[in-house]
Amino acid sequence: MDRRFPPPVSALALAADIEAGRLTPRAAVERSIEAIEAHDGLLQAFAETDFDAARRAADTAAGPLAGLCLGVKDIIDAAGLPTGMGSPVYAGHRPPADAPVVALSRRAGAIVVGKTVTTEFAYLHPGPTRNPVRPDHTPGGSSSGSAAAVGAGLVPLALGTQTGGSVIRPAAFCGIAGYKPSFRLIPTIGIKAFSWSLDTVGLFGAGVVDVAFYAAHLTGRDLRVDGAAPGAPRFGIARSHLWHEASGAMRDAVEAAGRRAAKAGARVVDVDLPGIFADAFAAHQTIQDFQAAQALAWEHDHHAARLSPILRETLDLGRALRPEDYDRARRTARQARLALRDLFSDVDVLLTPSAPGAAPEGLGSTGTSIFNRVWTLMGTPAVNVPGLASPDRLPLGVQVVAPFGRDRACLEAARFLEAALGA
Amino acid sequence: MDRRFPPPVSALALAADIEAGRLTPRAAVERSIEAIEAHDGLLQAFAETDFDAARRAADTAAGPLAGLCLGVKDIIDAAGLPTGMGSPVYAGHRPPADAPVVALSRRAGAIVVGKTVTTEFAYLHPGPTRNPVRPDHTPGGSSSGSAAAVGAGLVPLALGTQTGGSVIRPAAFCGIAGYKPSFRLIPTIGIKAFSWSLDTVGLFGAGVVDVAFYAAHLTGRDLRVDGAAPGAPRFGIARSHLWHEASGAMRDAVEAAGRRAAKAGARVVDVDLPGIFADAFAAHQTIQDFQAAQALAWEHDHHAARLSPILRETLDLGRALRPEDYDRARRTARQARLALRDLFSDVDVLLTPSAPGAAPEGLGSTGTSIFNRVWTLMGTPAVNVPGLASPDRLPLGVQVVAPFGRDRACLEAARFLEAALGA
Repeated sequence: MDRRFPPPVSALALAADIEAGRLTPRAAVERSIEAIEAHDGLLQAFAETDFDAARRAADTAAGPLAGLCLGVKDIIDAAGLPTGMGSPVYAGHRPPADAPVVALSRRAGAIVVGKTVTTEFAYLHPGPTRNPVRPDHTPGGSSSGSAAAVGAGLVPLALGTQTGGSVIRPAAFCGIAGYKPSFRLIPTIGIKAFSWSLDTVGLFGAGVVDVAFYAAHLTGRDLRVDGAAPGAPRFGIARSHLWHEASGAMRDAVEAAGRRAAKAGARVVDVDLPGIFADAFAAHQTIQDFQAAQALAWEHDHHAARLSPILRETLDLGRALRPEDYDRARRTARQARLALRDLFSDVDVLLTPSAPGAAPEGLGSTGTSIFNRVWTLMGTPAVNVPGLASPDRLPLGVQVVAPFGRDRACLEAARFLEAALGA
Repeated sequence: MDRRFPPPVSALALAADIEAGRLTPRAAVERSIEAIEAHDGLLQAFAETDFDAARRAADTAAGPLAGLCLGVKDIIDAAGLPTGMGSPVYAGHRPPADAPVVALSRRAGAIVVGKTVTTEFAYLHPGPTRNPVRPDHTPGGSSSGSAAAVGAGLVPLALGTQTGGSVIRPAAFCGIAGYKPSFRLIPTIGIKAFSWSLDTVGLFGAGVVDVAFYAAHLTGRDLRVDGAAPGAPRFGIARSHLWHEASGAMRDAVEAAGRRAAKAGARVVDVDLPGIFADAFAAHQTIQDFQAAQALAWEHDHHAARLSPILRETLDLGRALRPEDYDRARRTARQARLALRDLFSDVDVLLTPSAPGAAPEGLGSTGTSIFNRVWTLMGTPAVNVPGLASPDRLPLGVQVVAPFGRDRACLEAARFLEAALGA
């Protein structure tokens, strides 16, 4: 690839170097700072940085993530740094405390080096961030800066959020791993809300083992998948009613991923998503818009002129929805969750596109979340597995989805597939 | 009763006076300001007030709640006022925006007159607020100031939150109506979190019709119950495994409520809560403590010395819980929710104590939430119905609980019972 940026840095490998004494936390932090200084002028992944605070933190850091620099999406509060939310309404706003996910990351030793660019309130209006593989393409969104910063090797780890497809899609576009845990496995407190039934914290890292390593130490759960090779999972390729929306390259990528997984010993079958999933796809929009109109009621009432037209329009639409429409959408979501349970009786995980294709050209749009929305609504864990590319050498991501609460199985299957793709 | 304070003011009656032009919104606001100035020195329901802002808002207020003064619990953000959270850690903290529940209240015309005293982070460490019926007794908590301000006629409406019993219990102790809606019917965004699976916004008003009126205009849902008399509901008296913890006066009150409801035409039967409810009671604590240790991770790590001993101890305990314990507690909660569905096949609503008895003497404790916790965990709507009293003339509240999502049925049954008690 015609890269202008360094390759992603493995958090797990960096942590091993630090643990073995081959690198100090401070030296690891200096590497990130140097990379940011060298490359963020073009990449524009960061909305704010505080290198001095990062250096101070590095000198006392302890724990499994000690010395690992973390980029924090700029709708997530981190004490000491402004939370700008990609909106002029919040320019310079300083929160009083860390969001829990930031406090727990710091507790494990992670070093907050800065806030990463988000689209406006994590919706659609884009920021200035470029794609680290092809700078005139979008990095995806809404967690644009987090995915780009990891993709360009500026930080080994980053935090994002997903309401539609804002973790899995940018991870796919930037050629890195993105992990959306089961709904509410990681608290969304201290994070600007858009839709409280959908907003989900997600993690970015170079590869699947890296996001799993971060998740394990963030949650205290047995989620690391860098040890002994897991058994071969049963994959179900879920093309969904949107398959015709996927590019030819993406369809080839999903099928290639299935073949490579099968060659590596997995059982791979085709599964049909029942019709309720098409309804659930529509229900996602209703739930999101209805809730967003409430979540951003203050901004809508007091700062409408400072919101982007696309957001204002969505808030107007959401406000016009009736509670009955919303209640019906929630019932549809519940029915789809029940249907999903049956689907997982024959397979361990589903395999689907992470996005319709590779990152689109231009920075005016961050792409579409059509292949992610329903999995956000289902609350199921999902991982973007990197390793495939389009004919014009842009990253193509495929998505592994597991049942709610089976995060370890999801990460194991993603790791299995990642290894099969790299073999 | 030996009241030193005015009686509660009906929001519905006040709104009718304003709508009919018998009172201007500004005059209604002046009444609240006068009452606060006259009585809050003793009552101490307010942590902060801004009378000038309230007056300005009154002069342009429009909507069904125009001119109705609202007290906002001091863990809920209201732009223009500090959010102190009952903790020195947040003294003087000014949030950038309204919480959605505040923005939506203002949109309907309500006038935020001040922030009401909360226990520290809505947990157990009490504030200075007194009981409006008997000033040397607790008003209950954690929504202490909200319940007391409505109970003493200082404001017609107030907002609180409940994680254990923080809406239903103080409403009962202060002799007013308290309504805890179905989980997430009202968003908890912009509200300091303690436990994201439990925290629920609640409403206070003089009587059941008042909280229903507020809820209807806050949510846009058909929740008003001040029109034609609803049909007689089927009540199930749920004594629960904690019945022996209720005072004799409370047991008499629940049984008297059942008799009066039956006399008014309701079918009243005894129901046994299945054994899983005792397990769910314990699960509540595990879920609350595990989540609180994450929700307040930053405060725990950076301001431990400024937390009350009882909160610090809970955070220490919560941090020591294992994810397996937490996951088991969540499974228990799910099983109890399924069992509850069966229970509601024969009755419309449950009738249980709102608290073990009347408000305890002294301001050192806000009482216990043992009769509320499981209903918070179930996410079911609940209403405290005022109207009964102990032999020593303190208010005794009984609680009406309906199935998840059946908020209208809950409010109708509570209205039916309130009328039966008043007859």
